[in-house]
Amino acid sequence: AGGHGASAQNVSLYGITDAYIGSVRGSESRTVLNEGGNALSRLGFRGREDLGGGASAYFVLEMGLTLDNGTIPIGGGFGRQSFVGIDGRWGAIEAGRQYTPLFFNLLATVPFGMNANWAPVQLSGSTDGQPAAMRTVGLLTRQSNLLRYRYGGGPQAKGLRVDVAVAPDEGATGIGGILGLGASYRGSNYFIGYAAQRLDSGSAAATPFHNETQGLNGSYSLGALTLSAAYLVTDSTAPGARRAAHTVLGAAYDVGPHRWMAEINQRDLSGSPNDALAWALGYDYRLSKRTSLYGRLLNLNNRGTAANTLALAVVNAGSGDDVRALALGIRHNF
Amino acid sequence: AGGHGASAQNVSLYGITDAYIGSVRGSESRTVLNEGGNALSRLGFRGREDLGGGASAYFVLEMGLTLDNGTIPIGGGFGRQSFVGIDGRWGAIEAGRQYTPLFFNLLATVPFGMNANWAPVQLSGSTDGQPAAMRTVGLLTRQSNLLRYRYGGGPQAKGLRVDVAVAPDEGATGIGGILGLGASYRGSNYFIGYAAQRLDSGSAAATPFHNETQGLNGSYSLGALTLSAAYLVTDSTAPGARRAAHTVLGAAYDVGPHRWMAEINQRDLSGSPNDALAWALGYDYRLSKRTSLYGRLLNLNNRGTAANTLALAVVNAGSGDDVRALALGIRHNF
Amino acid sequence: AGGHGASAQNVSLYGITDAYIGSVRGSESRTVLNEGGNALSRLGFRGREDLGGGASAYFVLEMGLTLDNGTIPIGGGFGRQSFVGIDGRWGAIEAGRQYTPLFFNLLATVPFGMNANWAPVQLSGSTDGQPAAMRTVGLLTRQSNLLRYRYGGGPQAKGLRVDVAVAPDEGATGIGGILGLGASYRGSNYFIGYAAQRLDSGSAAATPFHNETQGLNGSYSLGALTLSAAYLVTDSTAPGARRAAHTVLGAAYDVGPHRWMAEINQRDLSGSPNDALAWALGYDYRLSKRTSLYGRLLNLNNRGTAANTLALAVVNAGSGDDVRALALGIRHNF
Repeated sequence: AGGHGASAQNVSLYGITDAYIGSVRGSESRTVLNEGGNALSRLGFRGREDLGGGASAYFVLEMGLTLDNGTIPIGGGFGRQSFVGIDGRWGAIEAGRQYTPLFFNLLATVPFGMNANWAPVQLSGSTDGQPAAMRTVGLLTRQSNLLRYRYGGGPQAKGLRVDVAVAPDEGATGIGGILGLGASYRGSNYFIGYAAQRLDSGSAAATPFHNETQGLNGSYSLGALTLSAAYLVTDSTAPGARRAAHTVLGAAYDVGPHRWMAEINQRDLSGSPNDALAWALGYDYRLSKRTSLYGRLLNLNNRGTAANTLALAVVNAGSGDDVRALALGIRHNF
Repeated sequence: AGGHGASAQNVSLYGITDAYIGSVRGSESRTVLNEGGNALSRLGFRGREDLGGGASAYFVLEMGLTLDNGTIPIGGGFGRQSFVGIDGRWGAIEAGRQYTPLFFNLLATVPFGMNANWAPVQLSGSTDGQPAAMRTVGLLTRQSNLLRYRYGGGPQAKGLRVDVAVAPDEGATGIGGILGLGASYRGSNYFIGYAAQRLDSGSAAATPFHNETQGLNGSYSLGALTLSAAYLVTDSTAPGARRAAHTVLGAAYDVGPHRWMAEINQRDLSGSPNDALAWALGYDYRLSKRTSLYGRLLNLNNRGTAANTLALAVVNAGSGDDVRALALGIRHNF
Repeated sequence: AGGHGASAQNVSLYGITDAYIGSVRGSESRTVLNEGGNALSRLGFRGREDLGGGASAYFVLEMGLTLDNGTIPIGGGFGRQSFVGIDGRWGAIEAGRQYTPLFFNLLATVPFGMNANWAPVQLSGSTDGQPAAMRTVGLLTRQSNLLRYRYGGGPQAKGLRVDVAVAPDEGATGIGGILGLGASYRGSNYFIGYAAQRLDSGSAAATPFHNETQGLNGSYSLGALTLSAAYLVTDSTAPGARRAAHTVLGAAYDVGPHRWMAEINQRDLSGSPNDALAWALGYDYRLSKRTSLYGRLLNLNNRGTAANTLALAVVNAGSGDDVRALALGIRHNF
């Protein structure tokens, strides 16, 4: 009953629909029609209200879309982003389900983006070879109950950006509290960022532990060519956990409607033979500002008995099977 | 495939995003980031078509939002409201999932609203101390399969309002049919209303019973100050059920961007020592017509071994633990 | 984070809200308030981008609505339609969850539509009397992972239409791959169409099989009167499966705000006494282009021990009980 006096112009709809035909070989070979090869499909609602004096109130509600079968992933609701915020010259405060500072830093420098099933950077979220307790956690790039303070603009804005986010434990049995910090600087043709986050397993967890992740990343543009690098390392106090380090290198070349990309991610699991190496080559042809056709070629080499996966390939546990995958798709932003 | 000729202007989007930081003590103490301290978050779609001659057809689709984690409560869909209607000078007929007449009557006089996790009136929906059969039911303020006839406007409209709603049983095992009646009159500075509803447990229930609730409520404004009162009593034929009576008193003082509120709810469970008393103090500061910052202070005293809860506090069954809670939040309407 | 530069005008909202009061007798009698008597309720988002040269990119996201209780059927998301497409003078390519070619052919000639709980053509989707393996499948009119090529316009467009759709198996345990073909021609006052589809049970199914369905249908208009007929036959290699043939005859008479309809569907299950016959009479009164009041009268005669159902009636397995149902409702397009 509340809110009935508001009008439609307070809300904008936006999103991405992305589908591809792929040939994917992991522990078995499959021809698939899937989504999110270039960018995960999504549907969002957002709005912004001018409060005067340079201040605004705003909200974002963004759901995932498993476009190929119509289901809504990440809990069936606005699992991608769901928050309310207020900003001004002093910065911004946001509360709800949001990306972590680490996510926004990385987003600034990875050629294939953060939210794509075929992005090698997704290997950094793997918990392969880690103990069971840690497996529910991975590299947390999005968190519920998050309260953020941010100084500076979005990840593409010039200048200094400082981002602090904290989530209370709320008596959780799974993922509990989180503390995240990020700082970055974007110059005319370069970006440099550092982020750290500490995640607690929840005060009610059977075996409480915490994970600490640090990330250092940067990019440098030489005209149409952009080179980028990121180093990510996660330590955990979970019994049996191993330090996981990821080195991500990328290159993108943009000219007219064409975009060529390459990205490599080296996973190093401390004291284990189960390392992995992923690389991808990509080409986007922009039909318009909003619509692209794309091709992707991806390779993931699982060393030892590692069972990491990318591109939604099925890799059997402990198999050490590699992934080879090829996709042709379309991405349409709205 | 149907309906593809329609255009966007037939639909309006609206909603509320509300988040707060709270310190909540029930059987344990927690710091939380939750939603709905001022008003439960929601996202709605509605439209209205002029049929000529003063008549219209319209619809409302409204989902809840657990803003802090992005999930959709009340069944994952449009569990708040989902109906189609037609109105004219003769009144309105609506069919679908809707609020009951009792809800609309109460909504007119409670300072903290009906849909807020921190509103003392929510204590009236408790089934603490009642037999298991009755626990699925509570104080029904919203019902599926409801067919309504209403004469008069919304709960804020002047003059007489008569509201009749009926839902068929449909062979239900849980909540079956419902019959609700409400009548109210709003003058220039007062409101008076009476509502009654009878709820059947469903023809296929193991132990069929019915609940009858009556509510009398009113408010009176002296300039910026509004005083309100409601008395609610529920009788049930469920074996072992107790008469539950709630007395709700409220006050609100509005001046410029400021709103101060107080509300108290006394729960009396017939023949039981497990009564309860809840009160809350609130302050809203309006940054604009659509956005407010707010503070809430809430106390719930559980007598005997009562285990009622408010403000999403955890109160262990049979503990008699009290709730004390403090919140600072933001509400943004769109 | 992606797509934030897009604006609201890229998306249109549309849908249907339909509710009725019905008296439905199957194995038992019930008074119900349900939805979808005229057309299943739904909410959709779609957009189209002009790419120049007669080409466009577009998307459709359409969810079902169980309007009477607010839930979202077919998986809780955009289970009705969820796809991205690109078209031009050469035709259209679409990828995602979509209707099959058979569906679009039938849609062109059935007076009560395809998506209505009270449409006799829905009897053609029954798997009554078939072996368990086949029961998850029915007459598939909508499929995930579908890649389509279409030449010609929508089902109401004049001229030739050719429609080919294929879905890969993806290692499915349930419904696997599908291949569908449709061809139709619409003249000034007639329509003729043929469609076939082959459905595989999935490469990982316990007992792999495939179903083949063929459909021939047409319609002819004499002024305000339109007559239509369809013949559908499904063969299956599932052990114990029976050939199911359906003959659907229809008539519709449109004059001013009035529309009268009749439809009959004869189900013949090869070598079984458990055939069935359904018929419905309908009347729509258009209050406007978007809103209609309607009445429906439906009869389903289950022969032998058949237990087919329509109009959401409860028919006990093996009972041979008939269905008789009457509804009065409202449909509002937006």
